Amino acid sequence: MSKLVLAYSGGLDTSYCAKYLSKEKGYEVHAVSVNTGGFSSEEIKSIEEKALQLGATSYTSIDAVQTFYEKVVKYLIFGNVLKNNTYPLSVSAERIVQAIEIVNYAKKVGAKYIAHGSTGAGNDQVRFDMIFQIIAPEIEIITPIRDNKLAREEEIEYLKQNGVDYPWEKAKYSINKGLWGTSVGGDETLTSDKPLPDAAYPSQLQTKEPSEVKLTFEKGELVAIDGQKDNPVANIEKLEVMASKYAIGRDIHVGDTIIGIKGRVGFEAAAALIIIKAHHLLEKHTLSKWQQFQKEQQGNFYGMLLHEGNYLDPVMRNIEAFLTDTQKTVSGDVFVGLYPFQFRLNGISSKHDLMNASFGSYGEMNKGWTADEAKGFIKILSNSGRIYNHVNND
Amino acid sequence: MSKLVLAYSGGLDTSYCAKYLSKEKGYEVHAVSVNTGGFSSEEIKSIEEKALQLGATSYTSIDAVQTFYEKVVKYLIFGNVLKNNTYPLSVSAERIVQAIEIVNYAKKVGAKYIAHGSTGAGNDQVRFDMIFQIIAPEIEIITPIRDNKLAREEEIEYLKQNGVDYPWEKAKYSINKGLWGTSVGGDETLTSDKPLPDAAYPSQLQTKEPSEVKLTFEKGELVAIDGQKDNPVANIEKLEVMASKYAIGRDIHVGDTIIGIKGRVGFEAAAALIIIKAHHLLEKHTLSKWQQFQKEQQGNFYGMLLHEGNYLDPVMRNIEAFLTDTQKTVSGDVFVGLYPFQFRLNGISSKHDLMNASFGSYGEMNKGWTADEAKGFIKILSNSGRIYNHVNND
Amino acid sequence: MSKLVLAYSGGLDTSYCAKYLSKEKGYEVHAVSVNTGGFSSEEIKSIEEKALQLGATSYTSIDAVQTFYEKVVKYLIFGNVLKNNTYPLSVSAERIVQAIEIVNYAKKVGAKYIAHGSTGAGNDQVRFDMIFQIIAPEIEIITPIRDNKLAREEEIEYLKQNGVDYPWEKAKYSINKGLWGTSVGGDETLTSDKPLPDAAYPSQLQTKEPSEVKLTFEKGELVAIDGQKDNPVANIEKLEVMASKYAIGRDIHVGDTIIGIKGRVGFEAAAALIIIKAHHLLEKHTLSKWQQFQKEQQGNFYGMLLHEGNYLDPVMRNIEAFLTDTQKTVSGDVFVGLYPFQFRLNGISSKHDLMNASFGSYGEMNKGWTADEAKGFIKILSNSGRIYNHVNND
Amino acid sequence: MSKLVLAYSGGLDTSYCAKYLSKEKGYEVHAVSVNTGGFSSEEIKSIEEKALQLGATSYTSIDAVQTFYEKVVKYLIFGNVLKNNTYPLSVSAERIVQAIEIVNYAKKVGAKYIAHGSTGAGNDQVRFDMIFQIIAPEIEIITPIRDNKLAREEEIEYLKQNGVDYPWEKAKYSINKGLWGTSVGGDETLTSDKPLPDAAYPSQLQTKEPSEVKLTFEKGELVAIDGQKDNPVANIEKLEVMASKYAIGRDIHVGDTIIGIKGRVGFEAAAALIIIKAHHLLEKHTLSKWQQFQKEQQGNFYGMLLHEGNYLDPVMRNIEAFLTDTQKTVSGDVFVGLYPFQFRLNGISSKHDLMNASFGSYGEMNKGWTADEAKGFIKILSNSGRIYNHVNND
Repeated sequence: MSKLVLAYSGGLDTSYCAKYLSKEKGYEVHAVSVNTGGFSSEEIKSIEEKALQLGATSYTSIDAVQTFYEKVVKYLIFGNVLKNNTYPLSVSAERIVQAIEIVNYAKKVGAKYIAHGSTGAGNDQVRFDMIFQIIAPEIEIITPIRDNKLAREEEIEYLKQNGVDYPWEKAKYSINKGLWGTSVGGDETLTSDKPLPDAAYPSQLQTKEPSEVKLTFEKGELVAIDGQKDNPVANIEKLEVMASKYAIGRDIHVGDTIIGIKGRVGFEAAAALIIIKAHHLLEKHTLSKWQQFQKEQQGNFYGMLLHEGNYLDPVMRNIEAFLTDTQKTVSGDVFVGLYPFQFRLNGISSKHDLMNASFGSYGEMNKGWTADEAKGFIKILSNSGRIYNHVNND
Repeated sequence: MSKLVLAYSGGLDTSYCAKYLSKEKGYEVHAVSVNTGGFSSEEIKSIEEKALQLGATSYTSIDAVQTFYEKVVKYLIFGNVLKNNTYPLSVSAERIVQAIEIVNYAKKVGAKYIAHGSTGAGNDQVRFDMIFQIIAPEIEIITPIRDNKLAREEEIEYLKQNGVDYPWEKAKYSINKGLWGTSVGGDETLTSDKPLPDAAYPSQLQTKEPSEVKLTFEKGELVAIDGQKDNPVANIEKLEVMASKYAIGRDIHVGDTIIGIKGRVGFEAAAALIIIKAHHLLEKHTLSKWQQFQKEQQGNFYGMLLHEGNYLDPVMRNIEAFLTDTQKTVSGDVFVGLYPFQFRLNGISSKHDLMNASFGSYGEMNKGWTADEAKGFIKILSNSGRIYNHVNND
Repeated sequence: MSKLVLAYSGGLDTSYCAKYLSKEKGYEVHAVSVNTGGFSSEEIKSIEEKALQLGATSYTSIDAVQTFYEKVVKYLIFGNVLKNNTYPLSVSAERIVQAIEIVNYAKKVGAKYIAHGSTGAGNDQVRFDMIFQIIAPEIEIITPIRDNKLAREEEIEYLKQNGVDYPWEKAKYSINKGLWGTSVGGDETLTSDKPLPDAAYPSQLQTKEPSEVKLTFEKGELVAIDGQKDNPVANIEKLEVMASKYAIGRDIHVGDTIIGIKGRVGFEAAAALIIIKAHHLLEKHTLSKWQQFQKEQQGNFYGMLLHEGNYLDPVMRNIEAFLTDTQKTVSGDVFVGLYPFQFRLNGISSKHDLMNASFGSYGEMNKGWTADEAKGFIKILSNSGRIYNHVNND
Repeated sequence: MSKLVLAYSGGLDTSYCAKYLSKEKGYEVHAVSVNTGGFSSEEIKSIEEKALQLGATSYTSIDAVQTFYEKVVKYLIFGNVLKNNTYPLSVSAERIVQAIEIVNYAKKVGAKYIAHGSTGAGNDQVRFDMIFQIIAPEIEIITPIRDNKLAREEEIEYLKQNGVDYPWEKAKYSINKGLWGTSVGGDETLTSDKPLPDAAYPSQLQTKEPSEVKLTFEKGELVAIDGQKDNPVANIEKLEVMASKYAIGRDIHVGDTIIGIKGRVGFEAAAALIIIKAHHLLEKHTLSKWQQFQKEQQGNFYGMLLHEGNYLDPVMRNIEAFLTDTQKTVSGDVFVGLYPFQFRLNGISSKHDLMNASFGSYGEMNKGWTADEAKGFIKILSNSGRIYNHVNND
């Protein structure tokens, strides 16, 4: 019997795949789910049971949260990456790591097939397929949902006929949760003009009492919260808990999909947004003008390629080397105020702060040069413009 | 007697200049103030009286709000320009237009000297001097405050000895108001870690009742608010009134000054921030991916040069041509929710919307291609990565 | 009978298509060739005869040289576009215009089908199909060569069996000639290490006597050669004749195809290379530093998208607006020396020359500022570095 | 007596400085010359004698060729840096390393002053002063030539009066030689329209017999010539000897100086140009499209900042990290043909060649996908354009 690894999430589509591929197609289905921060251990247990019931020969849960952070999230922070200045690329980033873990698993167990439940209308099929084909071109990709264009009802009916009768009632909002944020889709996100209602977001306002949190960065990484050191993943999760009580980090992103159509998606990403903005502020204090200029361009480009599934392009490693090198002085504390539905950056403290140098504070710096020096500076800075104007306007 | 045009604001520094230059230096001082949105007609009247009392031969108020919009603000909107993703360049932008108006006035009246009250420690001296020197290299620039490095108290004392005894008590916060926002400086902005207190901002929260406003853009310009047509300048002012009741648009910017030091400044710019974000959202719906990519780079670059006083570099005209051309389809309505201290972009409606095309909505688009076509797309998209991996990792 | 427009070149592939589509498939074949500079009127006449013999209902030759210049070549000059600093995009650029002309013709005659002879392994299929699908999604694209993967011999055999017995002997080198250069493919270009032999290039050295030619540009366009005014297309052709006697402009380009593989192609483009380099030199004298900086980025990007068939992306129009605006001062003479296998840029003369301004030549400019002003300039220019070093290295 | 380190070249200007500063100003002058490839050991000996005769307390020659390569030249190769696609930045690059060596020497010997012979009209003063001020703000910079605006004749007269009577006849062309090229200035380079005569260039045509040379790169560095391994510096020098016999590498650069005026300079840089072009070709075969895209932007930017004396900006280190990372696969042989006044890139051979992969050569690759897959690819690639056209043009 042919070994097939199925990227399994426990949802309707991949449940259909598990049953269909094992029963109708006769594959030896090895269900695998890759946790990038969205699953609790209870959920994983429930997913496992379901997978085996549906005919999977084995089920494996891969914990990839740390890998997700090391391979992707870290660089999204270094690069202050917000797609179109809005979206922290929560889902795009997860898919990459999930695909790599799946394909590595398939290679390890010697599977000749990989199956996933993506449709033919979205970004995820591209992200999955590209990585599979690049890393393991010898493995065949099987995608029943995309190939058969099944409607939800047909899948449910098929499963029912095969003795699987879960309550598959469609949630009003489809939710995708991970370390770097939660995406929210619904009827409204299929329109251009309707916002998501408050209730659609996973976190609801629990307190109106403002508070302040101190984020400590070391070489660009979040190493402590309110002075308590922990690894960055734990700190991100901790901050998410703190900030989601304020219902911070909601927004809707409208973006260009890889397949050329526009897509609209709601998201909630309190920790991601706060960390990126806090990290960015720290950089404004500690990096030179040209470092910021180049980082903005490289960061945006990195985000674009990541979004489009091009994570394996070697330029991504080159940009990661660049971004890592820029973080040498990005260390210090950032003070963030938390308020209902919003946060404020109150300030920073860093021994690398280029503003509060003992060399001279803003006021004293004035003593660093004379009026004549300033005038000389400006005069020569004007040379090119003066010449241009003289030549062309006289 | 030598004609001198003084850029006059009514503040202590330029008042000192008016008296000092007319009395001690014997210039025929023509005081000029250029209104880019900050002065009411009462204020202008009071400024005029003061100027004449101080020894100015004449006083002229130039209304440059419309010019300011046409020459600068319009392009800041087209380019979604926020310096370091934060600051709408409120003050930087005004200085440019003020300098141009001043020098044109000086040429008109045949003045051989232009004086301004900038110190030697900031950006404004550069912006003013550069434009003066480029457009009118034959005119000499006089800057008593920069040259004499006078302390506030010395200036007040000098004026008092010369019979001018205004109440020059130092405001706790220095405020610079204009069409595109208000900057706020204070003791806190000289530190890296302290936020400005709420009271330092010019607008205070007046209502907690959320509301929605509809902004109508035509080729990138704000042509109507809630369906009521007016010219863009009037619409900006109107939106500012509406939004400032919610105390929207406060933030602190940390930036690189032209003279190489870091500077920190608070600002309130409700209308500017709402318009830029609303305009940006409309673009996400109506522009191609590559238009957005190039606009982001060009817009940031435009903002950098504007900030640094390089407005007259011919590349700025070239970028304006580019930006204008991108706005051909940026027309439609944007729905914005106003809340205490924040706003939300609820959605857009546009006949140029690339998402809600009759061509096929997101769901229907799926019918636009088959599963096999999608697979072919992804397979060939993977070619370069597949080859790279094969060559380098096998 | 269904109307079909066939992009017809007179070569083996499209001859096969003409016969096959009319005879086997029963289409009413309207053969069209679009001349972008490669065909003489004799060649066109011979192509026409062949088309009709092969079963085409009609044949039309569209003269698109002027259109080619106006729509594409002009901007390649404005942008100094050389793909990877090497290749003037001769063929890529032609395909775009050919596709647009074909589809417009098909719409005019009400054809429901467009056929072309591209294979499935190259760039041209992408360029053709994309433009057809974007401008006329209702027209079906027919590609027998790509679909049937026919070998040369099979095509010849089929034609022979159908009474068409032209001498189809395979040329040792495949040549594609147009206004903006000639591409050359051969066995060597399928390797990475072999150059094309001299004889493979269309032009051979005819003189060893150096000469100088004066190129006159007006707003970036080549308006005269050696003082004789003519339209730019005529001037390009004239310069090509002059320069090809020196066998100038040969090179081999290695590039990334749209389908992800690397491709290598020889080319000869004397006029294109001379014009671009001469135009670039004129810009070095007449544009500001930042204009050149932005033009380089925009020009490269424009070339990349053009190469990849993305000519219809609206960002291309925006960049054209930008490039056109930059050319306002790019007027003057460029003096070019012609030598065997090479040319030299001897210098320029322009009233917009920012170097030879009456304002002060390089030597005299020294009088434009004092030593102290220069020192002030440098001191303040060093501020940011001085602070960075002080903060981080002490 | 106050210790002063003088950047000494043996020319008229720095000879004047040596005498003037020791005799008139009473400094203890320590003359230092930094060899970045331009001086033979005989020249250094002669420079030493002269320095001591002129009153220098000590003379030190610092051999910085290897440092020059490691700190700058290496990255210019990695980045294929040619300023304005023309100039390998020969002189700009040397000044940086010279300044750093001088200031380190001054710190070591505890000098309170550094003197150099630059005038106030060029780039070198900026490069020197900036680096001195950033690394050692406590050291005072002394520039007699800039300050006193002395004419050549005055300097000669002064030296003569002080018993120094060298034959200072002005060379018709000023030559600056170093590892990475030789710059040539003369009367012609002060015009815009005149080329330098052949005789002005240091190398003259010595052979008309073409030859081929094989350059071997390893991770971007030139490690062997014609199979003979040596360190990169030795290889550059060797290639220079080989290529200068063909008088290769002459050109004139027109660029924007740091002080805002245009400057024109001739140069001869056979090895630099051949290496950069050969290295670039190797990259076309071994790097992905996006690596090349980003490298072009980063390389140009790196060159701009280096040219402008901004070598110490931390962004330069970040870009070096990026560039280094891109070189991982840039290994292989490049075959270069040498001809009178020109060279040709004949091809490459590399195990990282993405074109000649065993995966499939260009012809065989066709078997890598079907016609339908190609059609699916193009169809979906057209989606965004199709939608845009549908929405906006119907």
